[in-house]
Amino acid sequence: MKFDSPRVGVLDAGSRDSIADVGEVTVGHATLADDTIQTGVTVIRPHAGDLYRHPLPAASVVFNGFGKTVGLVQLDELGVLETPIALTNTFAVGTIATAMIRTAVKANPGIGRMLPTVNPVVGECNDGFLNDLQAFAVSEAHYTQAYDDARADFGQGAVGAGRGMSCFELKGGIGSASRVASRGGSRYVVGALVLANFGRLPQLTIGGVAIGRTLVPACGSTSESGSIIVVLATDAPLDARQLRRLALRCAAGIARTGSNFAHGSGDIAIAFSTAQGLPDVPDALLDPLFDAAAEAVEQSIVHALFAAQTVHGRDGHVRPAIRERLPDWRERISATRS
Amino acid sequence: MKFDSPRVGVLDAGSRDSIADVGEVTVGHATLADDTIQTGVTVIRPHAGDLYRHPLPAASVVFNGFGKTVGLVQLDELGVLETPIALTNTFAVGTIATAMIRTAVKANPGIGRMLPTVNPVVGECNDGFLNDLQAFAVSEAHYTQAYDDARADFGQGAVGAGRGMSCFELKGGIGSASRVASRGGSRYVVGALVLANFGRLPQLTIGGVAIGRTLVPACGSTSESGSIIVVLATDAPLDARQLRRLALRCAAGIARTGSNFAHGSGDIAIAFSTAQGLPDVPDALLDPLFDAAAEAVEQSIVHALFAAQTVHGRDGHVRPAIRERLPDWRERISATRS
Amino acid sequence: MKFDSPRVGVLDAGSRDSIADVGEVTVGHATLADDTIQTGVTVIRPHAGDLYRHPLPAASVVFNGFGKTVGLVQLDELGVLETPIALTNTFAVGTIATAMIRTAVKANPGIGRMLPTVNPVVGECNDGFLNDLQAFAVSEAHYTQAYDDARADFGQGAVGAGRGMSCFELKGGIGSASRVASRGGSRYVVGALVLANFGRLPQLTIGGVAIGRTLVPACGSTSESGSIIVVLATDAPLDARQLRRLALRCAAGIARTGSNFAHGSGDIAIAFSTAQGLPDVPDALLDPLFDAAAEAVEQSIVHALFAAQTVHGRDGHVRPAIRERLPDWRERISATRS
Amino acid sequence: MKFDSPRVGVLDAGSRDSIADVGEVTVGHATLADDTIQTGVTVIRPHAGDLYRHPLPAASVVFNGFGKTVGLVQLDELGVLETPIALTNTFAVGTIATAMIRTAVKANPGIGRMLPTVNPVVGECNDGFLNDLQAFAVSEAHYTQAYDDARADFGQGAVGAGRGMSCFELKGGIGSASRVASRGGSRYVVGALVLANFGRLPQLTIGGVAIGRTLVPACGSTSESGSIIVVLATDAPLDARQLRRLALRCAAGIARTGSNFAHGSGDIAIAFSTAQGLPDVPDALLDPLFDAAAEAVEQSIVHALFAAQTVHGRDGHVRPAIRERLPDWRERISATRS
Repeated sequence: MKFDSPRVGVLDAGSRDSIADVGEVTVGHATLADDTIQTGVTVIRPHAGDLYRHPLPAASVVFNGFGKTVGLVQLDELGVLETPIALTNTFAVGTIATAMIRTAVKANPGIGRMLPTVNPVVGECNDGFLNDLQAFAVSEAHYTQAYDDARADFGQGAVGAGRGMSCFELKGGIGSASRVASRGGSRYVVGALVLANFGRLPQLTIGGVAIGRTLVPACGSTSESGSIIVVLATDAPLDARQLRRLALRCAAGIARTGSNFAHGSGDIAIAFSTAQGLPDVPDALLDPLFDAAAEAVEQSIVHALFAAQTVHGRDGHVRPAIRERLPDWRERISATRS
Repeated sequence: MKFDSPRVGVLDAGSRDSIADVGEVTVGHATLADDTIQTGVTVIRPHAGDLYRHPLPAASVVFNGFGKTVGLVQLDELGVLETPIALTNTFAVGTIATAMIRTAVKANPGIGRMLPTVNPVVGECNDGFLNDLQAFAVSEAHYTQAYDDARADFGQGAVGAGRGMSCFELKGGIGSASRVASRGGSRYVVGALVLANFGRLPQLTIGGVAIGRTLVPACGSTSESGSIIVVLATDAPLDARQLRRLALRCAAGIARTGSNFAHGSGDIAIAFSTAQGLPDVPDALLDPLFDAAAEAVEQSIVHALFAAQTVHGRDGHVRPAIRERLPDWRERISATRS
Repeated sequence: MKFDSPRVGVLDAGSRDSIADVGEVTVGHATLADDTIQTGVTVIRPHAGDLYRHPLPAASVVFNGFGKTVGLVQLDELGVLETPIALTNTFAVGTIATAMIRTAVKANPGIGRMLPTVNPVVGECNDGFLNDLQAFAVSEAHYTQAYDDARADFGQGAVGAGRGMSCFELKGGIGSASRVASRGGSRYVVGALVLANFGRLPQLTIGGVAIGRTLVPACGSTSESGSIIVVLATDAPLDARQLRRLALRCAAGIARTGSNFAHGSGDIAIAFSTAQGLPDVPDALLDPLFDAAAEAVEQSIVHALFAAQTVHGRDGHVRPAIRERLPDWRERISATRS
Repeated sequence: MKFDSPRVGVLDAGSRDSIADVGEVTVGHATLADDTIQTGVTVIRPHAGDLYRHPLPAASVVFNGFGKTVGLVQLDELGVLETPIALTNTFAVGTIATAMIRTAVKANPGIGRMLPTVNPVVGECNDGFLNDLQAFAVSEAHYTQAYDDARADFGQGAVGAGRGMSCFELKGGIGSASRVASRGGSRYVVGALVLANFGRLPQLTIGGVAIGRTLVPACGSTSESGSIIVVLATDAPLDARQLRRLALRCAAGIARTGSNFAHGSGDIAIAFSTAQGLPDVPDALLDPLFDAAAEAVEQSIVHALFAAQTVHGRDGHVRPAIRERLPDWRERISATRS
């Protein structure tokens, strides 16, 4: 997917500058966009196989727990991801979790009989400003639709779970980026995907430029019951403890866009490694990965904003695309970067 | 509800010896018992009002996170319980969470619009030994049914979410007890309710007597993918940090029945206070409450066993009631207590 | 203390723009500066009285645990600070902890007899680039000296525990700032004090300007075994859970100066409230405090840099003051802020 | 060391029934016993080499954080133990931590210069009932003495750090035990060492027998400002996340002796693995290790009691040996075990 966007940071991006630069990671969407229904589902597939049979090391960090993400209790105890990661709206978490169990059972009929149960991981943000949450529009079929849609060249912005999300009182949603971590002979990629639904306009900062203060807020809600879910992927062979350390660095990327982790924002990061084989990166060599994680997250948020189109939702609510509000962004943001 | 059971510990019980001794706490069940469907829903209502409008201080502790309980991220961040607590089987968590959101929205139509979203709390255990989990038999209506059934004089044993649960390879399920914590002039009650689905028979210990070693195991699975969910209630005015401390003491009660918190067991405790007004119990005076919590949990597990009847489930699986396997329990257990 | 420094953020500072704007907080230093000995002790006194008899609510957050801070286990369990907070070098933590116990015992002779023991809180960073750690130069008397030196108008930069610290390969040390959080009729102050000893030069960012990339590194070590200890104070009546939430927002301030929480950096925040009486700020009103915390921390780090003078230490090692390396900072940094 | 003691549990012990059954683990003591000075230092050496150069995977769990153990922040972040583990009294923690740094520096002169600093791990309990804490009798030399004393056939009871400790109002102190975890072809050992200084007499339970209720309390303090530090060792190749899981199971062993983790008790477990090579035990096979850990801890506490002799301390305080108070323990405890 192509869209123009400011470039933040100093590290090299992968060839797609998205989470799909990591191993076989793919992403699919089901988008519901019909009048007062502006919502959807996004599925991150860590590899092309069956996660239940071939789980990956994983960990999470909760920066601010005003959120309803499911699956973290077991993820953190066992250090393992055994389903794809789904993202959706706050009211749809239960439905999507059920869909994920059903999908896993279909592929592995022993689950819940002679095999252990499965732990679905579902992140959520509140898209209620644009979307009529009370319609409960997301169904189990939308999980399947998003799962089947998974591809390396996936859409960003107001698509999938990002359809109804707001970010800095502008249109937010799905964004993704990647950064390369090199050190000595090794070269690893860290990819991020965000569901960005947080922030107040005056805080918005891009590449260090406090651009939000210069923009006139749209009328309407400045509700702060936002959130950001970050999914981090890396091909570096890290164990769960190290992935938790990696996930923590997402805080730096989020903060640099202007967030102070507002009370009402469920700010959560989940990290997994796609590497085969045993972990073998000494902690003392993690800094390039940490830098890549922070920068990939910052860039992902910027991508979410710049990929998004304006969306009109329930009760006349509108979230404008940043590119409409800031047509001269190239001059105003890049000027300070050289 | 009346049933004979060994008495453990030394503290006084409340008048009902159940969680209903605390404030206005009530409990309701929806029980599904039809051939291969042996499952259900249990709802703990912390007070008679609307939890979303009148939330209570609360906290949780995860002893072993092999579990899919939802709602703990926000519960622990904000220290607040804003729905009843529902218990069900592992595959039904999503459905019940959705039902709880729908119920809260019906009572508070601003939720997800001008009011913040709601954080449903649903605990689960795996009843797949007796119950055909893959039938997904629990529906949203069962939540309403259990909610409407709530009463102080509720059933225990193989009812509600406990219908299909196994405990020490015997029939487990719902158990509840209370203990009085007195010190100086103050008198508080700690009540516990457990969904008991854990343990191997040889470990079973009642009142310090390692009775499980003397029992011949039933044929069939000794699957350890069990769990225990503990709900603790107290009328002591504790804040969330203190409730987390109280919840941790459940570990002692669980351990005394023989558990070592097996790998496959999602062992989780959630505690709330029904007190009105600001917290005002100094930490230095918590020990009587801690003792009451540990003993109430141990007694609740014993109650779950002794209230349960034998249940036949899927594929010829059976879990016998302990009172059938141990008809002479009065002689064998009480003997060591005097 | 007066020194010129860039101003970051948008909120009002308190009258001193330091942690001493909060209640009765004072700060004292003992500075050891003699050839290869470049180290010291800094003491933050939360109030003028005896903390053991009049403890304050407190909490901590560990962003990156490569550090040896003592006292956090009990601080987090009980939510209480019962000594001043001392800062020193990594090797002196034990000595200072002992000195703090001795001081508390002198004032309260029942400690360890009929009264409970006391929990000293000591943060540390590694000043070994400039200071000869192996000389173990800090003694118990330096704690008393710093304690007795406590005042509202305290020094910043290369003083006290900050004497030997490095920050972005420049001279770091002690910095402090404050921000006012207003909302409705309430007005609270959040003050921060940092012991800043972290960061690589190319990352240094001030007020959004990535100024570090433009500076030529000094020769010598670019050791990253740095750290930052943040002490947050507020006069808002928060409980320990809320103070933990406040402390987490320090991550945003640290990140905005360029840090990604490097592997070797012990990044830790401790927050306390000086308010009398019971906590009574609803969580939904915390955002102005969160913003103030993040901004006070960012400003404190900038203050640490701009207050510092160049220091020569062991083996010819030097850390230059930023004002020497960046004499034209007014043009280069303020230009982008208007 | 030989002493008679009740045997608890069902698993096989190692040949020494102590932590020295694990790999090369040895233990040494420095005991101070002179009138009002009844205290000391105990050092657990995980292997015969230099831990800083050859660190081991490790983790900790804090059950109740009323304690001043140092070193856990870094231990848990990096999952690594890089010094021996020292135990001492509450006031001596700082002194012993300093001694450990000095020892590490002597062996590795680059520490704090070109090498990272070292993270000493020191656990503590409050022996102030018998010992005059305010004498600060423990010096750095006692660490060296205990370190040099390390052996496989070490003393238990009122020795080393255990000299002044109380347990269930009886004489407590150092206890150790081991259990064998077998499954399939594998055979691992889990060893425990406790510094036992907790509990009220009426709670004391040995092998399920609530024996404490039958004993007449000694006159004098029933101070509950006790604690228990557990050190767990295993030769199973576990990683830090798994060792944290193992450490949590110590709660079961502690609880079975009667403790409810009293408010004033710093109850902490630290676990390490002595295995060479990469971790390779699947979590699903951990249960035998979990059972071994719980049982080894319960047995260690019993050993601490039965190895201890009566100690007279400050101000006429006395803690009697259990074997004096319970000369007929063989009949009273073993009777229920057959």
